[in-house]
Amino acid sequence: MILRDIGEFGLIAKIRNWMGKSHPDVVQGIGDDVAVVEMGKKALLITTDILIEDIHFERSWIDPYRLGKKALAVNLSDIAAMGGIPKYFLISLGLPKTLPFSFVSLFYRGLKERARRFQVDLIGGDTSLSQKIIINICLIGEGKKGNLLFRNGARVGDDLYVSGTLGDAALGLKILQDKSTPKKPKGLIDKHLSPNPRIELGQALGRKKIASAMIDVSDGLLIDTRHILEESNVGARIWEDRIPLSSPFRKWVSPYSKDPYRIALSGGEDYELLFTASPKRKASILSLARSLNIPITRVGEILPEKEGFHLIGKEGEKIPSYRLGFDHFK
Amino acid sequence: MILRDIGEFGLIAKIRNWMGKSHPDVVQGIGDDVAVVEMGKKALLITTDILIEDIHFERSWIDPYRLGKKALAVNLSDIAAMGGIPKYFLISLGLPKTLPFSFVSLFYRGLKERARRFQVDLIGGDTSLSQKIIINICLIGEGKKGNLLFRNGARVGDDLYVSGTLGDAALGLKILQDKSTPKKPKGLIDKHLSPNPRIELGQALGRKKIASAMIDVSDGLLIDTRHILEESNVGARIWEDRIPLSSPFRKWVSPYSKDPYRIALSGGEDYELLFTASPKRKASILSLARSLNIPITRVGEILPEKEGFHLIGKEGEKIPSYRLGFDHFK
Repeated sequence: MILRDIGEFGLIAKIRNWMGKSHPDVVQGIGDDVAVVEMGKKALLITTDILIEDIHFERSWIDPYRLGKKALAVNLSDIAAMGGIPKYFLISLGLPKTLPFSFVSLFYRGLKERARRFQVDLIGGDTSLSQKIIINICLIGEGKKGNLLFRNGARVGDDLYVSGTLGDAALGLKILQDKSTPKKPKGLIDKHLSPNPRIELGQALGRKKIASAMIDVSDGLLIDTRHILEESNVGARIWEDRIPLSSPFRKWVSPYSKDPYRIALSGGEDYELLFTASPKRKASILSLARSLNIPITRVGEILPEKEGFHLIGKEGEKIPSYRLGFDHFK
Repeated sequence: MILRDIGEFGLIAKIRNWMGKSHPDVVQGIGDDVAVVEMGKKALLITTDILIEDIHFERSWIDPYRLGKKALAVNLSDIAAMGGIPKYFLISLGLPKTLPFSFVSLFYRGLKERARRFQVDLIGGDTSLSQKIIINICLIGEGKKGNLLFRNGARVGDDLYVSGTLGDAALGLKILQDKSTPKKPKGLIDKHLSPNPRIELGQALGRKKIASAMIDVSDGLLIDTRHILEESNVGARIWEDRIPLSSPFRKWVSPYSKDPYRIALSGGEDYELLFTASPKRKASILSLARSLNIPITRVGEILPEKEGFHLIGKEGEKIPSYRLGFDHFK
């Protein structure tokens, strides 16, 4: 048996099983985007992400400045999705020995831009020779225990919301990869190359006790909704035509997909927040969206587990959800 | 200018400069093996190490079980060198999709063996496809602020001690790489493949306030002594013939080096503890060595900075130290 036969989620389940029970201070461990550990009155949040050249990015698509920004941003998004406060990070780099020094200095310039913007400090790391560029960031944050949001808090009757618009990053990537489109729309490309972690929104949703469960949309709306449903033991319906699409997305999507919602549902790398909240919190959510100037859209609702997970199409038809997302080993 | 022209230590200096000042809670940041952050009464210790196939290891030398053990051990050694208590770790893996599943399960078996032995919990990570195997561990520990040992505490007149024996791991690697030696000495090979982090020794040296400065020997005795000297603003002499060599080392070294001390001084990957202590602590050190059953040898003494750093050879001659260690980009 080889790794491809097991898939990423299968492997994670195995690892959880092999490693066994952890210390009672570990609130959230293997299999989640963020590990949570009790440390006195606070909780320590730790997340890590690896980016590998020619797997996650190509040097011909992304300049080193934006690569530095993105490497930190994807980790910040994981902390945002818990309502946490990011604090410190370490970076391990694998670098080819013939890499121009200017690449490294621009990469760090991008890293520093995001670090300043979100007030996080680089406190260490490791560097090594490598054939391909490898970037591994470990980001540490903190939060008050009562303010943190997990995937498992969704309740039947809650509404399902998403911030921003979906599909832009995935469409941006398709356009980047498409050699037949010389003039590339900057907005969509930027959504792919320079994602904006929703730190302030995540913290407000936790601090004001507005949301009941939360995750960031990194694997696509379908897969990430499924994570909330599985951990909360609930079902859900999503109204396809309520999924927020940007106008550049609507303008550019047709050559790449007959059904625009397909990309928005399963594209991934949106780094928007997906959360559930009681219908009573509707007014607070509207006012938060206005004050932070971030669109927040109600795209679905939480159902009893036995009703499963389905989409409602434009004609009102019920479409059972299916796994369209990206499994790293398949 | 390319990376090779700058070298690893040059790059770290640049990064420290680019990223600027960090938050006052950061006790130790960029450039050290372990980052230290104040968290209430405790200090949080964080260290990260990246291992890349065909750079740090080859699949033909090391089986997956020992690779798992070693990946965690090298990080544990960094926490040991501060007298800290290791607690949690995250692991990012890059894995080829055709890797046999048995490789991954044996790797985790090795990881778990070290995790149990040193009571640390795997709490998260990331996995990705990759051409070469990539292993990045981020290990988190803690310590009482007053018990932690840094590189900068050595004082003139202190003795310089090292645990265990030196050079075994470096010689083990040379023998592993040598195709003309079919029968390989297990002891030396094991020192390279299965280093044993000195966690209990490190903690005792900190808790009992025995040592004044400490580091683990990962880059070789010369380079790691130099780190203590630079950060403590002192000089040192090391008596070459006091450097502890194991009997397998003495037996096997001659085909690989005319001067056996050359490998012991600059080989690296020993993962022993190198520390300074006041001469008054000699009796406590002897008794600690006996109770933990770990050899501890006085190899040198700390001098005023203006006397520099030199070795005393077998004939009593003064040999100025020179940089023999391993710079990852050169």
